[in-house]
Amino acid sequence: MQNQRLEKQIQFIIAADQVKNVLRQNYIIDNTRRENDAEHSWHLALMAIILFEYRKIKDLDLLKIIKMVIIHDLVEIEAGDSFAYSVIENMDKRQREEKAAQNIFGILPEDNKEEMLSLWHEFEALETNEAQFASTLDRLQPLIHNYKTEASGWKNYKVRKEDVIERNRFTKEIAPELWRYIEEMIEEIEKKGYFS
Amino acid sequence: MQNQRLEKQIQFIIAADQVKNVLRQNYIIDNTRRENDAEHSWHLALMAIILFEYRKIKDLDLLKIIKMVIIHDLVEIEAGDSFAYSVIENMDKRQREEKAAQNIFGILPEDNKEEMLSLWHEFEALETNEAQFASTLDRLQPLIHNYKTEASGWKNYKVRKEDVIERNRFTKEIAPELWRYIEEMIEEIEKKGYFS
Repeated sequence: MQNQRLEKQIQFIIAADQVKNVLRQNYIIDNTRRENDAEHSWHLALMAIILFEYRKIKDLDLLKIIKMVIIHDLVEIEAGDSFAYSVIENMDKRQREEKAAQNIFGILPEDNKEEMLSLWHEFEALETNEAQFASTLDRLQPLIHNYKTEASGWKNYKVRKEDVIERNRFTKEIAPELWRYIEEMIEEIEKKGYFS
Repeated sequence: MQNQRLEKQIQFIIAADQVKNVLRQNYIIDNTRRENDAEHSWHLALMAIILFEYRKIKDLDLLKIIKMVIIHDLVEIEAGDSFAYSVIENMDKRQREEKAAQNIFGILPEDNKEEMLSLWHEFEALETNEAQFASTLDRLQPLIHNYKTEASGWKNYKVRKEDVIERNRFTKEIAPELWRYIEEMIEEIEKKGYFS
């Protein structure tokens, strides 16, 4: 390979392929198998495109939101998937993922690495409007999946109604109409007896 | 569900989940199993972000390119995956996919449907700069996968060197540096004896 810059980028694109083997707790909607991180990230990008109109703050950068959701789980190639409702799995998550981010994005040329790390840190910090909207989708998507799969994704953990409300409640500020939908879904899930 | 517009959008997001079960001929890079359309589309979005700098025409809309690659295979939920190098599978592809596009995007509210159909038609027509760049990625990605998997994706079909050159040659105009990389990869593939 003559072009060293491009070669690094292709090596990153090849390394990123491994995220297709990182399994999440959630099941795909036909309930036949667990979802992987690549599928999940694709789904979030689709949701960002369709649900962008529900943002409360209108001056948001959709491209940045999509970039965030596309790259947000690459750290899990090395750090593994930490289930949102597991206290233990989340104890040293920050450190494991920071190291993993340096490794996976470190394959790239320096300027690409800086952009990717910056996007990922912004997503994790949950401080900017774009990160908050992206995170809203990241929490809504598994809720829809669990609603449609008799909560298959929660079966190995005791997930309670109040945990799900707590995890999604900030959507009320970010996208009020999505929050109303989430509330209705949570009521339905309770009626069906899927909560622990 | 009180919000009928949002309900349609969520139903679309749920229906789109089925693309996770549409298998392509290509294998994921560890060569353990075939790739599905959701994973493929995610990978194209990542490539769009990283390889955007190689576009020859600088005034391109990256957001539109990413939207295209995220939605471009949804028609395959109904129409199935047509292998690029199969003449038979591509004979009635256009009609089958047009019908499928009307069905899957028809779940959405009218304005969303129009935007999605417009993006998909633009991608398929291969006339705009954005569609051409998106399509370049759509052809490069399986080439990288076959390069890394001893051409597992080609094993059921007789894929010749000239077919692959023919399918990728327009990259020369769209992104000359990517074309040089493709040429090198094709030479390597020939040396390894993966072509039919």
